[in-house]
Amino acid sequence: MNTLLRHRILPWRRPSRAFSTTACLRTVLPLVTLPPRITPTYAQRPHQNSLLSLQWPSPPRNILLTKKKRTPEITASLIEYANHLHSTYPSTNLILEPSAASEIHSSLPFPIYSYPEGEGPGQLTEKTDLICTLGGDGTILRASSLFSHASSVPPILSFAMGTIGFLGEWKFREYKRAFREVYMSGIGDAYGHINTFSTPTLPPGDHDSAIRGKSLGSHRTVRVLLRNRLRVSITDSSGRPLMDSPSISGDTYALNEVIVHRASSPHLKIIDVYVGGRFLTEAVADGMIISSPTGSTAYSLSSGGSIVHPLVPSLLLTPICPRSLSFRPLVLPANMPITLRLGEKNRGREAEVSIDGKRVSEGIGVGMEVRVVGEEVRTQGGKWEGGVPSIVRGTVGGREEGLGDEEDHWVGGLNALLKFNYPFGDQDNSSS
Amino acid sequence: MNTLLRHRILPWRRPSRAFSTTACLRTVLPLVTLPPRITPTYAQRPHQNSLLSLQWPSPPRNILLTKKKRTPEITASLIEYANHLHSTYPSTNLILEPSAASEIHSSLPFPIYSYPEGEGPGQLTEKTDLICTLGGDGTILRASSLFSHASSVPPILSFAMGTIGFLGEWKFREYKRAFREVYMSGIGDAYGHINTFSTPTLPPGDHDSAIRGKSLGSHRTVRVLLRNRLRVSITDSSGRPLMDSPSISGDTYALNEVIVHRASSPHLKIIDVYVGGRFLTEAVADGMIISSPTGSTAYSLSSGGSIVHPLVPSLLLTPICPRSLSFRPLVLPANMPITLRLGEKNRGREAEVSIDGKRVSEGIGVGMEVRVVGEEVRTQGGKWEGGVPSIVRGTVGGREEGLGDEEDHWVGGLNALLKFNYPFGDQDNSSS
Amino acid sequence: MNTLLRHRILPWRRPSRAFSTTACLRTVLPLVTLPPRITPTYAQRPHQNSLLSLQWPSPPRNILLTKKKRTPEITASLIEYANHLHSTYPSTNLILEPSAASEIHSSLPFPIYSYPEGEGPGQLTEKTDLICTLGGDGTILRASSLFSHASSVPPILSFAMGTIGFLGEWKFREYKRAFREVYMSGIGDAYGHINTFSTPTLPPGDHDSAIRGKSLGSHRTVRVLLRNRLRVSITDSSGRPLMDSPSISGDTYALNEVIVHRASSPHLKIIDVYVGGRFLTEAVADGMIISSPTGSTAYSLSSGGSIVHPLVPSLLLTPICPRSLSFRPLVLPANMPITLRLGEKNRGREAEVSIDGKRVSEGIGVGMEVRVVGEEVRTQGGKWEGGVPSIVRGTVGGREEGLGDEEDHWVGGLNALLKFNYPFGDQDNSSS
Amino acid sequence: MNTLLRHRILPWRRPSRAFSTTACLRTVLPLVTLPPRITPTYAQRPHQNSLLSLQWPSPPRNILLTKKKRTPEITASLIEYANHLHSTYPSTNLILEPSAASEIHSSLPFPIYSYPEGEGPGQLTEKTDLICTLGGDGTILRASSLFSHASSVPPILSFAMGTIGFLGEWKFREYKRAFREVYMSGIGDAYGHINTFSTPTLPPGDHDSAIRGKSLGSHRTVRVLLRNRLRVSITDSSGRPLMDSPSISGDTYALNEVIVHRASSPHLKIIDVYVGGRFLTEAVADGMIISSPTGSTAYSLSSGGSIVHPLVPSLLLTPICPRSLSFRPLVLPANMPITLRLGEKNRGREAEVSIDGKRVSEGIGVGMEVRVVGEEVRTQGGKWEGGVPSIVRGTVGGREEGLGDEEDHWVGGLNALLKFNYPFGDQDNSSS
Ligand SMILES: NC(=O)C1=CN([C@@H]2O[C@H](COP(=O)(O)OP(=O)(O)OC[C@H]3O[C@@H](n4cnc5c(N)ncnc54)[C@H](O)[C@@H]3O)[C@@H](O)[C@H]2O)C=CC1
Ligand SMILES: NC(=O)C1=CN([C@@H]2O[C@H](COP(=O)(O)OP(=O)(O)OC[C@H]3O[C@@H](n4cnc5c(N)ncnc54)[C@H](O)[C@@H]3O)[C@@H](O)[C@H]2O)C=CC1
Ligand SMILES: NC(=O)C1=CN([C@@H]2O[C@H](COP(=O)(O)OP(=O)(O)OC[C@H]3O[C@@H](n4cnc5c(N)ncnc54)[C@H](O)[C@@H]3O)[C@@H](O)[C@H]2O)C=CC1
Ligand SMILES: NC(=O)C1=CN([C@@H]2O[C@H](COP(=O)(O)OP(=O)(O)OC[C@H]3O[C@@H](n4cnc5c(N)ncnc54)[C@H](O)[C@@H]3O)[C@@H](O)[C@H]2O)C=CC1
Repeated sequence: MNTLLRHRILPWRRPSRAFSTTACLRTVLPLVTLPPRITPTYAQRPHQNSLLSLQWPSPPRNILLTKKKRTPEITASLIEYANHLHSTYPSTNLILEPSAASEIHSSLPFPIYSYPEGEGPGQLTEKTDLICTLGGDGTILRASSLFSHASSVPPILSFAMGTIGFLGEWKFREYKRAFREVYMSGIGDAYGHINTFSTPTLPPGDHDSAIRGKSLGSHRTVRVLLRNRLRVSITDSSGRPLMDSPSISGDTYALNEVIVHRASSPHLKIIDVYVGGRFLTEAVADGMIISSPTGSTAYSLSSGGSIVHPLVPSLLLTPICPRSLSFRPLVLPANMPITLRLGEKNRGREAEVSIDGKRVSEGIGVGMEVRVVGEEVRTQGGKWEGGVPSIVRGTVGGREEGLGDEEDHWVGGLNALLKFNYPFGDQDNSSS
Repeated sequence: MNTLLRHRILPWRRPSRAFSTTACLRTVLPLVTLPPRITPTYAQRPHQNSLLSLQWPSPPRNILLTKKKRTPEITASLIEYANHLHSTYPSTNLILEPSAASEIHSSLPFPIYSYPEGEGPGQLTEKTDLICTLGGDGTILRASSLFSHASSVPPILSFAMGTIGFLGEWKFREYKRAFREVYMSGIGDAYGHINTFSTPTLPPGDHDSAIRGKSLGSHRTVRVLLRNRLRVSITDSSGRPLMDSPSISGDTYALNEVIVHRASSPHLKIIDVYVGGRFLTEAVADGMIISSPTGSTAYSLSSGGSIVHPLVPSLLLTPICPRSLSFRPLVLPANMPITLRLGEKNRGREAEVSIDGKRVSEGIGVGMEVRVVGEEVRTQGGKWEGGVPSIVRGTVGGREEGLGDEEDHWVGGLNALLKFNYPFGDQDNSSS
Repeated sequence: MNTLLRHRILPWRRPSRAFSTTACLRTVLPLVTLPPRITPTYAQRPHQNSLLSLQWPSPPRNILLTKKKRTPEITASLIEYANHLHSTYPSTNLILEPSAASEIHSSLPFPIYSYPEGEGPGQLTEKTDLICTLGGDGTILRASSLFSHASSVPPILSFAMGTIGFLGEWKFREYKRAFREVYMSGIGDAYGHINTFSTPTLPPGDHDSAIRGKSLGSHRTVRVLLRNRLRVSITDSSGRPLMDSPSISGDTYALNEVIVHRASSPHLKIIDVYVGGRFLTEAVADGMIISSPTGSTAYSLSSGGSIVHPLVPSLLLTPICPRSLSFRPLVLPANMPITLRLGEKNRGREAEVSIDGKRVSEGIGVGMEVRVVGEEVRTQGGKWEGGVPSIVRGTVGGREEGLGDEEDHWVGGLNALLKFNYPFGDQDNSSS
Repeated sequence: MNTLLRHRILPWRRPSRAFSTTACLRTVLPLVTLPPRITPTYAQRPHQNSLLSLQWPSPPRNILLTKKKRTPEITASLIEYANHLHSTYPSTNLILEPSAASEIHSSLPFPIYSYPEGEGPGQLTEKTDLICTLGGDGTILRASSLFSHASSVPPILSFAMGTIGFLGEWKFREYKRAFREVYMSGIGDAYGHINTFSTPTLPPGDHDSAIRGKSLGSHRTVRVLLRNRLRVSITDSSGRPLMDSPSISGDTYALNEVIVHRASSPHLKIIDVYVGGRFLTEAVADGMIISSPTGSTAYSLSSGGSIVHPLVPSLLLTPICPRSLSFRPLVLPANMPITLRLGEKNRGREAEVSIDGKRVSEGIGVGMEVRVVGEEVRTQGGKWEGGVPSIVRGTVGGREEGLGDEEDHWVGGLNALLKFNYPFGDQDNSSS
């Protein structure tokens, strides 16, 4: 991380409005000036072994907002949302991606934070307390990719905008309640009484005192689904890492999947597959998918894979158009490493690698390998680490919730979005 | 065909109402008293190579009505329909299956025709000009099974009632127009001018002169899809036929499919499959389906078969839960005979055979065979014979119709009923 | 458990040979006379999180032998095996199922143990230290079903005999080495030096000292795969248990799967599916499978399910011939309860339930439910309980074994038995 | 077709050996100097409705030889084959593709024929009597592509070389017999007695008089499978053709399939599908395949399509990784036109089109369409036209052959090459 950013007005922002009286408010500030990151804990809930409780040691301050690109309505929603956060929770600082910062900072009457294009990952990891996404699944995947080299990802509050997706949990019209619940989550537990820090930040203009009251109870927490990622490394034939950005030595994490594909080559690829260090099979196919359970409803599904619940600790190995009648998708333990190797039979032709729908800049050639293992999610004293903490929508009322209640969102998504087991028949058409 | 039926009141009907003044009207008459069958021709339409034109030499008289059982609403609709036919087309005679005849004859102010339980097939083949079904696909299958030993099936006009199906073409509320169009179909072509016989039978009470006018033109014909059936024979290990009814020596026809299945035996069946007289493979599975293209959207579809358009002259060979990773469904030429043989490895255990969802009374044992070949549909001088002539719904206006227009019903069925390629996403739920 | 068995010659055995001098040797003794069961522990191996180490507190004594029925070669092998055990490990007692006991006891020059038909389960659970199966997968399933009401199953050493299966691990020709390794497993660890009890029982006639030496080291243990079962209960519409044997109140365990099926009814079944207590979907199908990962290569595979590694804690929900284009198999967390309910729409028709390929005697009617949850496998102080402990074949040499090495058997089974991703092409036929 | 070729030594061949005495033999001659093409007829055989009989009006003279590239063994085989043809059938003229001509002409002691790179199609159509391919399926596809703008393709005799394929029929070691049978096919029928022209060309060195005698009978014909192709046109949004080679205005024929694919774009493509001129569905997928029955065992199979026998007159519509649970492959009548249209929702992104595994040079953009209809195969007086006449391997003995016998090659290919329904189990490994 360089230290180019010395001025309050970043060099990559045009200082055109610097003379206006609100100039100081409409600037884009560098991330270094933000307070350090606040990391929440995730507690297992009594009698529950699935969703976790988000618990802030103190309320989140640095909020990263990401949005779908090139969609004016969503940009407008982002501005509305940012204004709400700033006025209701004055102690929060809003971080935007460079392009969004450039696009909307002048529409906001307060300063925002950003970073130079290409330098996000390192800085964001050190500062971001909470991520809010406005868009579809692609936006969540992009937000997650900003933390693709970080072992600890901030919780994600995702709003589905028009393009309904499978990962997005909340409807945008719920944004006030949603943010408040996340903001307050678990702080009563940690501090005994909530007033110490929450009073000044309580939404003043919110007259819906019923809901407000509800979310003030000391045991109110939002529920979090820790989505396990894949740890991916790409190496050349001598085992040396070869990943996107040469500056980053470590591994990359994928939320959905990693893919090796023939791409624009019209010929079948020949990929050797190893599981647990042992040769499994030679795949002759368009490509291979290694997917997380989260990704089981994405590309893997289109390629014939099963739907795997996100809480099953597993990896999916799904071929794309295999030249074999008997290549059935496999579901393997999350801790069993899988390696895809481009064998000599490919006669020098390269294959493309994509992570979460984004092409890795370099293709892989003969002898190169893609190695994947499920992200290790650790428990220490009933607290969890690792994964992508996705804030799940659902009633957070006072009644004791059963397991079934929790799974609402996933089952609902299967039925409403994927049209899982959609019944036959002509519903709309009465016949006599 | 015996000649037991000498009285107007059949012996299998209780003569309870014989004393009432309307007795003669409410009786059930035997089929022998009906005039002989009128067989239409099916002409290829110019520039069309798919649907055919129904052409009556003279208007149909003997109309077989079948209905779904145990559904009071449909019984009521049947009575309404019967009354309409009797009053509008006084020269028609209505035939009902024994159970329906017994159920409704006393509600009708005119005599109807029926036959003793179990003697239908032979008599019906000799007398039925046109079949009308009120129900779902099961009702059409049952109607077709009444002609399962006949090589020539009368045209079928099918009304979908409540339980929407894939084979049913017409909505019941269209019944007046539908019947009129079928009734008049092609008679102008055959006789030069329609008046010779149609005037007295024209619907007197029908004031919808626009539609009426339309259907009087000399080139108005309804379109017919000839659904090819399967010719099925079941033989014992020495090749002797062994079919349901021992009295019937010939083959049986299936509209959807013939199935060999383990049924209540919990063990896999081992079935040798021959195509074109040559051993293809040994299927170890729950069972095997041999399906017509019509049946490709029925059981075969549930077992993973492709959807085959009814106009592709083919047979489908689809395994049910095969114990092999590489048993992919096959589509074979309609004229290639397929044999399923229960091999010795089954160790004496029987398998069940079903035709169009109806179990064949005897199971098949080791060495027995099910032989299937596509029904031969012949063309002679541009006229077609064979198959189940299904009257297709669609505009029969004066404009030149393209091929696309004709396929309407099938494409529509795929989309509306099977939810073919139903799009993802939450249509009913706006998100912001 | 009754006390009918008072005589050395059981009432259900014909005492025909009682007068011969070897009568006392050739008798069948009741299980009550056996010493109490020895229960091994299963330790997690360092750096391994998959297979476990079998550790006997003292060598096993009561050995249950099961075999495939009606296969003379296997009966001969059983006799050979029994003789070997008796002569080499004189302190072992051999238990046979009633039919096998009756069949072979007169061929053995020493007494064996058995129990009255139908009373096995309770008695076996109290006495059996180790199970050895000679047969195919069906034999292992049957052996496991003898413990289908027990929460603790003895370890299973399975020999594949002719009919190669997927669950059978060992080849029969290895039986001497295999048994010795199992017999000795972990006793050095527990007792410091092995001699205390093993010397007298060491195979005297075994001259293969190399192998013998190998298996004597103090850290030699056989590896065990704990196969999680399904806990199944069947209840009537008021929630009262309704299971096979009315005398047994508790649940039943399945190793492969539980199935609800239309069986000999030719009509589709309509089954309501609940996961985690919440309605998921209405399945219209031939039936539904709830499978363990072990069963993922059995019926579920034939029905289109994915192959799930036995170490993935999960349940598979796989439809059989569903009448929907969009019913994809699901993989759910092992601790998420699944309920199948026969809804009112079935109009009184029953469905059949099978567990591991064996029909439950009563069918289920409208309103009845099949409830399934994954068996809980507990860890206490690094030791495991629950599941079916299957002794895995593989080198147990002194070298440090990697994870990959351990998975050998499963990967090998996929490739050799299931012909997973079997390559295209005509291997046997050179072309020029 | 231009007239660049004025010299016996083509300008694109280096005349390096022109001075040698054998120069005139080792030259490459232009196609214009060849005698005109001889077109065989294909007669339906009595009692057969599937394979046809090849009948030459006079023996073939101009033989096109194609081979797999960059495979020295195959080049050697080609030289052997060419020498055999020249010496045994001195009246034949051998045509090679430019690259092969350049590679081997100096190894042959007689002149061969070729054409300038890029000018093949037109000239070949006018001159080629018979095609012989040495290679795998790719070589057959390439040979067929040389006639991809011709409505009449010469018969193809294909030798599988090492890389066994599904389309290749003959083994190379059979080449002498194979060629002789093809060469003589049907000439007795046409000319009454064979001697008029065949005597001088009979293989003098062939001492296998038994076989020789066999093939001389007057009714010996080789059997031909007419493989229907797809007629493909690609148009821009205003309906103007846009195909590969701008000079060729007409349609292109595909033997396997035409594909629209996302290729190197990581995003789903949105493709509108029309059948019979009517909108069927919007496919959101990696791509779409429209395949012939011949191609049903190629890419379509890998994408989940059914296997369709080459004699079923049909088109397959198979999606590649569709983003829908309910997109099942369709089999449509061969004469029903299918259109794939790249809709506006693709936001300007292009898709790639491939025909038989070869990319069409230009991608297609928004509004462009790929239109496909099955090639029309006409019958006139019992003779057939159209399709790719593939010479089928099989005994052509004197006995009456049944239908089954004929299908040998296809059924055999399914079993041997595709490992169709390959049985489970460990064949190579005895177990006890
Ligand atoms: N043939 C296919 O199914 C393809 C799928 N993809 C998927 O797209 C993802 C990238 O997404 P975009 O950038 O938006 O690309 P995109 O614009 O191509 O759309 C991908 C679609 O997948 C959905 N999706 C993404 N993740 C999902 C999940 N976990 N569960 C259910 N649906 C999910 C999105 O909502 C969207 O409808 C990749 O990670 C890959 O999984 C990418 C290429 C082809
Ligand atoms: N698992 C499955 O999919 C099973 C399917 N069947 C099918 O049911 C047929 C018998 O019908 P029913 O007596 O009504 O039995 P049923 O009451 O079991 O219903 C069968 C269902 O299949 C539909 N169907 C029938 N023929 C069809 C066709 N050609 N295309 C599309 N859908 C079709 C019907 O509308 C109904 O929804 C059999 O011929 C067989 O094809 C029968 C048993 C199991
Ligand atoms: N269509 C199908 O695939 C059917 C499968 N089955 C399966 O058969 C099992 C009962 O076995 P049997 O009594 O021997 O019946 P069976 O004689 O019908 O044979 C079942 C076959 O499944 C194999 N098998 C059993 N368990 C397996 C596993 N876990 N992984 C891989 N292969 C396995 C056996 O080796 C045998 O080849 C049931 O639990 C069920 O899973 C039962 C009926 C139909
Ligand atoms: N994922 C897949 O299955 C892919 C398949 N292809 C197929 O490859 C064909 C082009 O062949 P090549 O140039 O050799 O490419 P290639 O080198 O990629 O090999 C294609 C494979 O398909 C086989 N094949 C070709 N036509 C066949 C047929 N009709 N039936 C059975 N197998 C067949 C060939 O023997 C070869 O094994 C295309 O027409 C397409 O069908 C092309 C790309 C991907």
